Amino acid sequence: MASTFGTNVRVSIFGQSHAPAVGVVVDGLPAGFAPDWDGLRAFMRRRAPGQTLLSTQRTEADLFEVLSGISEGKLCGAPLCMVIKNTDTRGQDYAGLKNTPRPGHADWPAQVKYRGHQDAAGGGHFSGRLTAPLCLAGGLIIQLLAQQGIRVGAHIARIADVEDTPFDPMAPQLDDLQDGYLRVLDARTGERMAAAIDAARLALDSVGGVVECAVTGLPVGVGQPMFDGLENRIAQAIFAIPAVRGIAFGSGFGAAGLRGSQHNDEYALDDAGRVTTRTNRHGGVLGGLSTGMPLLFNAAFKPTASIFKPQRTVDLARGQEAELALKGRHDPCIVPRAVPVVEAVTALAVYDLYLDYVKEQAYGIE
Amino acid sequence: MASTFGTNVRVSIFGQSHAPAVGVVVDGLPAGFAPDWDGLRAFMRRRAPGQTLLSTQRTEADLFEVLSGISEGKLCGAPLCMVIKNTDTRGQDYAGLKNTPRPGHADWPAQVKYRGHQDAAGGGHFSGRLTAPLCLAGGLIIQLLAQQGIRVGAHIARIADVEDTPFDPMAPQLDDLQDGYLRVLDARTGERMAAAIDAARLALDSVGGVVECAVTGLPVGVGQPMFDGLENRIAQAIFAIPAVRGIAFGSGFGAAGLRGSQHNDEYALDDAGRVTTRTNRHGGVLGGLSTGMPLLFNAAFKPTASIFKPQRTVDLARGQEAELALKGRHDPCIVPRAVPVVEAVTALAVYDLYLDYVKEQAYGIE
Amino acid sequence: MASTFGTNVRVSIFGQSHAPAVGVVVDGLPAGFAPDWDGLRAFMRRRAPGQTLLSTQRTEADLFEVLSGISEGKLCGAPLCMVIKNTDTRGQDYAGLKNTPRPGHADWPAQVKYRGHQDAAGGGHFSGRLTAPLCLAGGLIIQLLAQQGIRVGAHIARIADVEDTPFDPMAPQLDDLQDGYLRVLDARTGERMAAAIDAARLALDSVGGVVECAVTGLPVGVGQPMFDGLENRIAQAIFAIPAVRGIAFGSGFGAAGLRGSQHNDEYALDDAGRVTTRTNRHGGVLGGLSTGMPLLFNAAFKPTASIFKPQRTVDLARGQEAELALKGRHDPCIVPRAVPVVEAVTALAVYDLYLDYVKEQAYGIE
Amino acid sequence: MASTFGTNVRVSIFGQSHAPAVGVVVDGLPAGFAPDWDGLRAFMRRRAPGQTLLSTQRTEADLFEVLSGISEGKLCGAPLCMVIKNTDTRGQDYAGLKNTPRPGHADWPAQVKYRGHQDAAGGGHFSGRLTAPLCLAGGLIIQLLAQQGIRVGAHIARIADVEDTPFDPMAPQLDDLQDGYLRVLDARTGERMAAAIDAARLALDSVGGVVECAVTGLPVGVGQPMFDGLENRIAQAIFAIPAVRGIAFGSGFGAAGLRGSQHNDEYALDDAGRVTTRTNRHGGVLGGLSTGMPLLFNAAFKPTASIFKPQRTVDLARGQEAELALKGRHDPCIVPRAVPVVEAVTALAVYDLYLDYVKEQAYGIE
Repeated sequence: MASTFGTNVRVSIFGQSHAPAVGVVVDGLPAGFAPDWDGLRAFMRRRAPGQTLLSTQRTEADLFEVLSGISEGKLCGAPLCMVIKNTDTRGQDYAGLKNTPRPGHADWPAQVKYRGHQDAAGGGHFSGRLTAPLCLAGGLIIQLLAQQGIRVGAHIARIADVEDTPFDPMAPQLDDLQDGYLRVLDARTGERMAAAIDAARLALDSVGGVVECAVTGLPVGVGQPMFDGLENRIAQAIFAIPAVRGIAFGSGFGAAGLRGSQHNDEYALDDAGRVTTRTNRHGGVLGGLSTGMPLLFNAAFKPTASIFKPQRTVDLARGQEAELALKGRHDPCIVPRAVPVVEAVTALAVYDLYLDYVKEQAYGIE
Repeated sequence: MASTFGTNVRVSIFGQSHAPAVGVVVDGLPAGFAPDWDGLRAFMRRRAPGQTLLSTQRTEADLFEVLSGISEGKLCGAPLCMVIKNTDTRGQDYAGLKNTPRPGHADWPAQVKYRGHQDAAGGGHFSGRLTAPLCLAGGLIIQLLAQQGIRVGAHIARIADVEDTPFDPMAPQLDDLQDGYLRVLDARTGERMAAAIDAARLALDSVGGVVECAVTGLPVGVGQPMFDGLENRIAQAIFAIPAVRGIAFGSGFGAAGLRGSQHNDEYALDDAGRVTTRTNRHGGVLGGLSTGMPLLFNAAFKPTASIFKPQRTVDLARGQEAELALKGRHDPCIVPRAVPVVEAVTALAVYDLYLDYVKEQAYGIE
Repeated sequence: MASTFGTNVRVSIFGQSHAPAVGVVVDGLPAGFAPDWDGLRAFMRRRAPGQTLLSTQRTEADLFEVLSGISEGKLCGAPLCMVIKNTDTRGQDYAGLKNTPRPGHADWPAQVKYRGHQDAAGGGHFSGRLTAPLCLAGGLIIQLLAQQGIRVGAHIARIADVEDTPFDPMAPQLDDLQDGYLRVLDARTGERMAAAIDAARLALDSVGGVVECAVTGLPVGVGQPMFDGLENRIAQAIFAIPAVRGIAFGSGFGAAGLRGSQHNDEYALDDAGRVTTRTNRHGGVLGGLSTGMPLLFNAAFKPTASIFKPQRTVDLARGQEAELALKGRHDPCIVPRAVPVVEAVTALAVYDLYLDYVKEQAYGIE
Repeated sequence: MASTFGTNVRVSIFGQSHAPAVGVVVDGLPAGFAPDWDGLRAFMRRRAPGQTLLSTQRTEADLFEVLSGISEGKLCGAPLCMVIKNTDTRGQDYAGLKNTPRPGHADWPAQVKYRGHQDAAGGGHFSGRLTAPLCLAGGLIIQLLAQQGIRVGAHIARIADVEDTPFDPMAPQLDDLQDGYLRVLDARTGERMAAAIDAARLALDSVGGVVECAVTGLPVGVGQPMFDGLENRIAQAIFAIPAVRGIAFGSGFGAAGLRGSQHNDEYALDDAGRVTTRTNRHGGVLGGLSTGMPLLFNAAFKPTASIFKPQRTVDLARGQEAELALKGRHDPCIVPRAVPVVEAVTALAVYDLYLDYVKEQAYGIE
């Protein structure tokens, strides 16, 4: 229900920040595919905190275990379950927080919704920790998509007021993405972003940003009209990432200020005689369906809610206002870690619709 | 599947622009509710073209017929089906367009997806006409929400470069919305918007805009974590509206440029001793759950794709480029008509999650 | 939710016995298929009452109208909506029955569930009338299956104590089915069944029976493990038919009394070198998946609940017991009319799983 | 998709017989409930093989581990994941069986469906081992139902030709069920059943049987019309149990031979003035909804497919027929172990619909 996504491929996420484990069950993957486990581990390392001083000092093993779904090194057609044990938790950092909800977190509405029974430690099921199993499932599906010639890649478009070069909408430079903690196109921008994050950290504060994601190689006609188009499903998946505040495809909010003649993408034939568009403001999607042009969108992330500056809250037990000073280990900016998560959930949505496409293309009508 | 939405209340949309009818089946509404049919007709008139010169000259009756689901004037618990006959169609305006896809429309990907069998007239199932049954379902559900003390209201935040006063995030001025074709807070803004639309029309062009929507009266704790939160479901529903390019909650993309201390909403107790937030940048949703503060978001609309300026496209039959000059009747700006549609689909998403809330609150654990 | 079925192809049924119409929306059918409307009308006639004195004297037009989903005579990929106007209703036959629930019908539990707001006339949404839209959807899908070489056929296995020849499990005699009101393999059995029904009618009573259904031509491997196997989905669909009490595949309940050596079907190679089984007690399904052998099951129907003999019930308004003597027009046996309905809903379930098979077979893994 | 069930409460089953583990994720359980873990372990022991000589000699620990979903001993509202490590497997017993499909098992259709990549050991995902996680989820939900006054209980109605006393349809004797390996009402029947099983085992053969299940305490009006009634959902769940061949509610197939006057249950008022029926042939369900009378059904189980008698099959590699002689450890009758599984999956279906009832009853319409 809530923590489940997909129709052809069903993904069920479980776990809380301080539960024995977090994990995912993926049902519907094609039998015979041989996962690249090293590749998946490398993908997971892109999200793991502890990479640099910039991120959280909490060390998570992020080593995952496959409990089911594999036979002789390949997907066997049965549901795939992968779990990650939670090994490095400091529970006492969160003591007493059920009573004094942290601003910007789900503490208060969860307290009401679950009548106080929610697992509050580390944010419970709302914790960024749950992006780990999202990345397990999505990372594997990125491999499946790649086998079909479809690539998913994202970079940090912006942190605070520092902007990276945007993707070329006609040919996103997926091969030029700078590896390293800050995944950008322009290395110098990466340095300025690091500085902005560091400044926030020193100020006991946090910053937000924007992640831009591209999907290339999608054939024409993937997606469904109305409620199950590429935008609908990608948006539903993207908002599963904590801290996301908005999503915009192609020209996004900028389209609102353009004239039709400035925004429409005229059709043309490329050198091979295939239909293409001269520009790509539509970001590869029209009417929910892929057009064959690169799919592009931006996702906005609010600044990390956990800051070390004192904040005002309420003491629910005493019915009076109180002050809150967080301890523990918190990311001054979660955007760098969110980049692989954006890729992962985008892959979930795209692949699920791609399987519809496979079915539709194969169906024989005389 | 594609044209279906919801879990507690399932909405199935059917119809094409030039089919005999468009309509909707709504399954799961509570028995005993007496719909206000006059109210629903009034709601439908807010979207119907032909209101002013500003909009499409195509006259649609928009008179709907109830085929099932009612007994003695009340919802009887069985699926509700409402249909609208398509009476005013000028088919020949669209002749030959299967061959020459219109820029900015779904023509090309649909041609591939459906192997040329799609109903292309008027955009077929991708037409803005399908917002009529969306409004039938959503308009009724707005009444159901109102009965529970929950209000949904939207206004035009922006057309071209003209901006309306935004909603007060602490108390959206739903009662101040100016009735009339352009639903705004500030009447003078409405005039400037009308001028911008008119200018585009005279230029044989089109403009886009932004719609801002507020939901007030939501109790705390509505929504589910991860994939079924309020943002996920509202986003999935909003992208069902043609021409939507982006959605952003609360501070939206602006949050990306703020520090945590500037963006977090601190908790406090109001005069009645209830938990509230001092500010509302989060737009009423945290972790996918309602916080009790007004829910707010902006949806960006691209400029209408159908413009009268000549455009370049391809002739699929001849395999060469061609020019396209549209005839017929087209909206220079669909944003004014989209306002009730935004309210309608928002109501679908909110109500579906509200029913989960009813269930959770009523469940008894000793 | 309740009146919706399917994943690849979603079927939404709406209508009450005395509503303006009953109908169905089918979303997910393949574009390009040209329905045989005459064939569908012929299929509908198989279920329509008024064929002989044996059945209800209520005349239903059963003429259906297509509101959407068709373009140039073919399925266009958009949802297909078909409606049947309810023209011949005699409301007064049901006056006062909300107060005095009829034994064997859903009246009493519906009265509680819908708090008295249910449409009670003619059984409302629980009426056998709803098998008409089931047959519209299923009848069309039977044509789609036939195009893929898959046939669905059923006959009356039993009425009262009269039994027809069962299907040959190795080669069901679908071509030998006697046309006419009682669809049987052995015409003499048909006469004895007619006599049994007539005897019941004269006694102001009713009889039940069993329908046997076969599906031939299914490739091997259609269906999913656990909850979405052929038996699970066919059973879920079959129980949507009013009056069904049980379903049993292959040897069914008889298997319970056999030894493994008597029940197992040993494998062999046929003349063409293909895998087959020497016997077919398993009825074509193992582990939820098709084996390539004919799929066979029996569905048990209770005797029609509406009988003219006086029955005891309660007067809900007065809180005391009362007597009930039904008037109106009622089938002394609904089994003959149920045969096409069994075929129809079986087709829904089989086709939905067949589309998974198409997807799985087409998916390319190097 | 396939191995997922439910709407309000979603159950995802994973695992293969010889995978590292089997398990289940349950999403949607109410926060605040304190599971009785000892009670759940006791429930699991009812299904565990190794209890007596009558059952499989394979010892399974069946000790489960909770990976998520619990906080301070109570359900915390987040998805609950329980896993069971597979510790006692003898892989070599199944060597070579991908090539020579076992009669009566899913081997052959799975080989085709998964193109040979399925995990064949021990039947893989089709193994009876998967009834363990079904029982974990169902066993917990039985406790939740009990808290609401709803009881689920089953007994062996029949093994081979030995029949137990059936449940009294007006008052199923749930408290009289004989504990021990063969759960029956009449202890002497249990002895005769044991003898029948033993005889089959000595003959290197197997026997089947029937399980009868009762659900008491259901309020009136639980369930939905058409596709989501109690019969539809219970049937969908019951067929997830390996070896089930049929299901029949109330009088079941016997109803087919009755007259309406013999089968209808007349209404009456009990001593407390509540509506009841004088008889209960309908087995507690009418039109998919609960009537307040005990819900009753029978499920037929085929004889265990794995027998030690030699059987004929095909050698897929050589394209010729072959003989098969199974080794290993197999149950001569799985019916005794299936009894708690029947209770478990019935609980899943009933509880899911019960939550709809809670929502519907709580919804306020003025």
